[in-house]
Amino acid sequence: MVILGVDPGLATVGWGAVEYAASRFHTLAYGTIRTEAGLPVDERLSQIYDGLAELLDRYRPDAMAIEELFWQTNVTTGIVVAEARGVLLVCAAKHGVSIYEYTPMQVKSAVVGYGKAEKKQVMTMTASLLGLKQIPRPDDAADALAIAVCHAHSGASALEKYFNRPTVIGGIPKEE
Amino acid sequence: MVILGVDPGLATVGWGAVEYAASRFHTLAYGTIRTEAGLPVDERLSQIYDGLAELLDRYRPDAMAIEELFWQTNVTTGIVVAEARGVLLVCAAKHGVSIYEYTPMQVKSAVVGYGKAEKKQVMTMTASLLGLKQIPRPDDAADALAIAVCHAHSGASALEKYFNRPTVIGGIPKEE
Repeated sequence: MVILGVDPGLATVGWGAVEYAASRFHTLAYGTIRTEAGLPVDERLSQIYDGLAELLDRYRPDAMAIEELFWQTNVTTGIVVAEARGVLLVCAAKHGVSIYEYTPMQVKSAVVGYGKAEKKQVMTMTASLLGLKQIPRPDDAADALAIAVCHAHSGASALEKYFNRPTVIGGIPKEE
Repeated sequence: MVILGVDPGLATVGWGAVEYAASRFHTLAYGTIRTEAGLPVDERLSQIYDGLAELLDRYRPDAMAIEELFWQTNVTTGIVVAEARGVLLVCAAKHGVSIYEYTPMQVKSAVVGYGKAEKKQVMTMTASLLGLKQIPRPDDAADALAIAVCHAHSGASALEKYFNRPTVIGGIPKEE
């Protein structure tokens, strides 16, 4: 199965596309969708929509995995990240891609086996699982790959493969 | 000019379409886009996108006016409202509609002439300006109409009519 991990943001959306079969990963590609700070927000959101649409067309993922948002100390950042996240969700829904959401703790737990792991540990383990010689850059892309790995290791992914349908275990699936 | 006012939310998006010419208002229609609580968020966001797209096709507004989000006491509500707002912004951008954002204080000031006016005063004045016998229901639709009135009364609207292009005065326009 192909999984697209996504790390939402307004200036930078991290993404990572991985193939997962027989408990092995193959990294297809990773990178970022970037938008310019000087542009109006709606134009930037439009670029994010188009950027994700292009990735969905290119990699045709079976699932998109995305981090759940929690309230952050920076109020303004929180609002724009949520706006960007809404755009990513609606774009995936329009493309008929199942969406799974994970908390940061679920990602750490699925990747490192410990929900309070350090960021560095998560990055190192992600690179190792994906057979990458270095930790992927930038951080947004590495975060997105970790979320994709989390989905692959989650019960949702295993059951989906088994029953060939989304399930609620380990994530919040888009109902068909 | 036709103005579509929009009050963002996940469960309920209020909307109001008004025509404004020669300092007079004509209310075209108002209502809400509602989504069911039991559905997955991405499905609800998709319905919001489709609902707004239908309104933009039906009323072909010259401008969409929407309230700026501020951080609220309810964290979870704030995140989902911001996600819905992102979807509304991207939908308008995809339809080439100019977007203007106003703070609650700007709306009160433009409608009542006093930035700290009570909600009731804003509703009463909105109904009066629009020639409506009663305060529009539900509140989400009334709020959306107030935002539309705000845009009509703002410098942005006047200058746009005059110069036939969006401007930054009184709102944050979508650049063409």
